[in-house]
Amino acid sequence: MFNVQPLSKQFESEFWSEINNKTKPLGALGQLETLAIQVLNIQSEIHGKLIKPVQINYPHLLVFAGDHGIADYGVSIAPSAVTGQMVNNFAANGAAINVFSKQLGWQLDVIDTGILQPINSISIRRQRLGCGTKPFHIEPAMSHTIMEQGFVFAKALVHEKFNEGCDLIAFGEMGIGNTSSASAIMSAIMELPAVESVGSGTGIDQATLLKKQQLIQQALDHHRIPKENVLDILATYGGFEIVQICGAMLAAAERKIPIVVDGFICTAAAMIAKLIDPNVQDYFIFAHSSGEQGHDKMLQWFDAKPLLNLDMRLGEGTGAALCLPLIQSALAFYNEMASFEQANVVNVVSDI
Amino acid sequence: MFNVQPLSKQFESEFWSEINNKTKPLGALGQLETLAIQVLNIQSEIHGKLIKPVQINYPHLLVFAGDHGIADYGVSIAPSAVTGQMVNNFAANGAAINVFSKQLGWQLDVIDTGILQPINSISIRRQRLGCGTKPFHIEPAMSHTIMEQGFVFAKALVHEKFNEGCDLIAFGEMGIGNTSSASAIMSAIMELPAVESVGSGTGIDQATLLKKQQLIQQALDHHRIPKENVLDILATYGGFEIVQICGAMLAAAERKIPIVVDGFICTAAAMIAKLIDPNVQDYFIFAHSSGEQGHDKMLQWFDAKPLLNLDMRLGEGTGAALCLPLIQSALAFYNEMASFEQANVVNVVSDI
Repeated sequence: MFNVQPLSKQFESEFWSEINNKTKPLGALGQLETLAIQVLNIQSEIHGKLIKPVQINYPHLLVFAGDHGIADYGVSIAPSAVTGQMVNNFAANGAAINVFSKQLGWQLDVIDTGILQPINSISIRRQRLGCGTKPFHIEPAMSHTIMEQGFVFAKALVHEKFNEGCDLIAFGEMGIGNTSSASAIMSAIMELPAVESVGSGTGIDQATLLKKQQLIQQALDHHRIPKENVLDILATYGGFEIVQICGAMLAAAERKIPIVVDGFICTAAAMIAKLIDPNVQDYFIFAHSSGEQGHDKMLQWFDAKPLLNLDMRLGEGTGAALCLPLIQSALAFYNEMASFEQANVVNVVSDI
Repeated sequence: MFNVQPLSKQFESEFWSEINNKTKPLGALGQLETLAIQVLNIQSEIHGKLIKPVQINYPHLLVFAGDHGIADYGVSIAPSAVTGQMVNNFAANGAAINVFSKQLGWQLDVIDTGILQPINSISIRRQRLGCGTKPFHIEPAMSHTIMEQGFVFAKALVHEKFNEGCDLIAFGEMGIGNTSSASAIMSAIMELPAVESVGSGTGIDQATLLKKQQLIQQALDHHRIPKENVLDILATYGGFEIVQICGAMLAAAERKIPIVVDGFICTAAAMIAKLIDPNVQDYFIFAHSSGEQGHDKMLQWFDAKPLLNLDMRLGEGTGAALCLPLIQSALAFYNEMASFEQANVVNVVSDI
């Protein structure tokens, strides 16, 4: 259903040569340089030779919300009702992701992928796959048919954004209980016991943490899905929002849009996406290292060093949102910095 | 000459209570929360009770440039002439710091503190202390009289910025050889051998690195300044730009302006400033962890965790510049996020 092309990197050596001739020591802008190269590679895949200024003009951030059957079993600090309450908060522009999107220039959309009760608001897009998932320690979170419907929804939405001119995309999530889903997915893929993938989420106490670890270990032991069966892992441990984020990542990469990968839950979706099509990683910009304990292991799995490390564990795509100015800085220095020749500065490297 | 007041933090518990009532899990915005508290504490020190929106309206970035006698002795990748060439590049808006300042909204000033030959440009402010420092492995970089003149220059400049409305300040530097000065200062204060404070700077080879370490160890052994004699350390290992940055930090803290501390060289200036007046640290926002080897040890000395870690080692204040959007995000969430009550979201923490 998805067909992601790897980056050809046809002009990469030209980009490096230009960056290395800017008036700075070689490599001195560190991660901003590799970030610039990645975005330039992606844009040149679409446009061929690039004309300056190379810019991000239409960054879109999509927040997917969904409820989780397992949340009724004492794994979370908050009841499932909070998912819908927070979706209302998104609609009223009161949440952190609203603030950061407005400040930094993201166009924000919020998608109901299946919260307990639908919300009557024109600000919320409906792509519902049910009224919350099934409790996955007892039965699969959803059927394959429903998961595939989620991919169809996600793909259509990303195509719509692409047609609107979207040239950078990020995803966020809201769903009480979704760190449990993400932990189970991580454990299944990395073959780790729940005790290594399950952290304290948004701040549960020690007793709840143990309960959460037990319940997820129980789910892993019950389903025993081989790590190769990635679609089974996704349908079983689920999260309607995780399914749609995974599908949206693949659809965005298919359309050659750079993807900013947020924290623990989005990274779990990204792991599934990569196992479905390894080429998707060419389009991933890892945003931040979250405070959630398993996240660093996930990032190691990708061999990724994220841009930010601010001990944030809020979700909603907030970590991804904060990266936009850094991505813009990476393009700005490429566009505007003088070369040694232009500035009449001695290029010590080429002179050696 | 400087009189820095510690933060009274009179309203801090009110700020925390407001942040903890925002629609997010407790502490979930991590370092952005402590950053918001710090800026709010500083602003309330001036304005008393704060009226929203709390904003940064006039961020100023001052780049101090100076030349170093030791640069003639093979410690750097580039000759001293490059300092002046780069100052011309600043004047022509071609350097990285020009690009980032324009992109992010910093007002940029460039100050000649004593490069080899003065530059004839109205864009460059002259606060010259000489034509480069003395080679400090042989004799002190400058006299106490000259250092004190540097403090006077710096203080007057910061007062001017304060009178223009400056409410956030950052410093950058340019000076071939100035990582040698910073390393010597670090070694003298932390009582470390040169081999632990001297890194590869902007990218010297192994032979030059050994030479640089030997020369700086020779300087440390020659002058043997007790770590308590902080003004002797500054005058001896010098850097006209380091002196003026140190003075500007103290002057900014005196005027209760939050200070963004850039990389290795600026952090060396910050160490001296702290030893002159420990209260100055209340005003420090540490920007980034640079690729320069000693920088992490300096940050530990301050017990600081910087905002960014992007393997940058360019100087010019580029790391500090990139932090502005994060500081603005910290204030934006404080200003605009809804409380649990406003959004009708269950506050699970206060309900427990």
